[in-house]
Amino acid sequence: MKFYDSFGLPNPDRVRIALAEKGVLHQVEIIQVNLWEGEHRTASFQAKNPSVTVPLLELDNGVAISETTAITEYIDHAFEGISLTGKGPEERAVVHMMQRRGEQKIVDAIGTYFHHATPGFGPEIELNQNKAWGEAHLQKTLDGMAYFDAVLRDQAYVAGEAYSMADITVFTGLNFSEIYPKVSVPAELTALVDWRQRIAARAACAFVPETLGGRL
Amino acid sequence: MKFYDSFGLPNPDRVRIALAEKGVLHQVEIIQVNLWEGEHRTASFQAKNPSVTVPLLELDNGVAISETTAITEYIDHAFEGISLTGKGPEERAVVHMMQRRGEQKIVDAIGTYFHHATPGFGPEIELNQNKAWGEAHLQKTLDGMAYFDAVLRDQAYVAGEAYSMADITVFTGLNFSEIYPKVSVPAELTALVDWRQRIAARAACAFVPETLGGRL
Repeated sequence: MKFYDSFGLPNPDRVRIALAEKGVLHQVEIIQVNLWEGEHRTASFQAKNPSVTVPLLELDNGVAISETTAITEYIDHAFEGISLTGKGPEERAVVHMMQRRGEQKIVDAIGTYFHHATPGFGPEIELNQNKAWGEAHLQKTLDGMAYFDAVLRDQAYVAGEAYSMADITVFTGLNFSEIYPKVSVPAELTALVDWRQRIAARAACAFVPETLGGRL
Repeated sequence: MKFYDSFGLPNPDRVRIALAEKGVLHQVEIIQVNLWEGEHRTASFQAKNPSVTVPLLELDNGVAISETTAITEYIDHAFEGISLTGKGPEERAVVHMMQRRGEQKIVDAIGTYFHHATPGFGPEIELNQNKAWGEAHLQKTLDGMAYFDAVLRDQAYVAGEAYSMADITVFTGLNFSEIYPKVSVPAELTALVDWRQRIAARAACAFVPETLGGRL
């Protein structure tokens, strides 16, 4: 199995953490794709993934899976161990709901700010910047942080009392936000700050700061 | 179970079709939410759904599920009948991948065009329009139609040889595109046109044109 990765970006990090949580990261061939150099826009990569994004998981039978939630579904159902997508209809629904809110309110919001209101991957890659659109997503990100802080005042994890892919999504989004566009979690969001420390202490999540450090 | 709906919009239509495919639409209390009148922005609705969107599914125990893919997960796992999200890790992953592409390339793309480059829900609801951003999504929608046409030249359904939630997503997006912002599928995309006729012939999808007609 091949995992087309880009260290330190939230969606590839989501896949790396999911593989690590299942204890199978060492079984996967990891191929770094340098988005700053446009390596995702080559014809050979686009043939594997017409969405022109990382992460991408290429199975041993040649089937290529893109879109991070789809890859997480694969990993959670293909491997034993901790459940990342929930058990039973209601728990599955709540995990998927909170995971999607994590994408919209954190990962996609700060990504839009990064790609449109900052240099992003640089002028050769960011060809269609819209500064006003990007700037509106800074407040959206801060609103998202406040939303998850309120959620975490009432429960231990993003989707309830169990760790799930929803935690992974919010966690990777906050890491990216802090290190690339330098938008940090406000200190007064203490429930979010405490939760983040608990997540960072998980073995599967521990590699993140180090790999981010390598990029900077 | 209560379903907060808005006839003719793609995400609520996705839920309505999923319920109809499972044969349980008649078991659900349907509450229409008029987005043109801002009924989704009342305090009572926001208390149920902080994302301020329809569809919303309220279970009998009071748990409220938003985000359409999460609702589809619930429906597919809670009720017997046709599988909408796939069986086994690989099939589930491909369905989720193609469903997400349907959202990004059709539903979200034409939705962005509608909300930002046309009057959308009107000046009292569309408070943060960005015309350039909206206009860029017209070509993105047309590119998405061409992408799914190419996919459907090689296989019977969006995610392979079986009908799934990925078909429902693309189908509802194309209906919305045609009726609201009036962006039709180009006639030369014959595989997409043929597939759409097959989907429209399904009993669960047959109500759509009639309900859209009621809005116009």
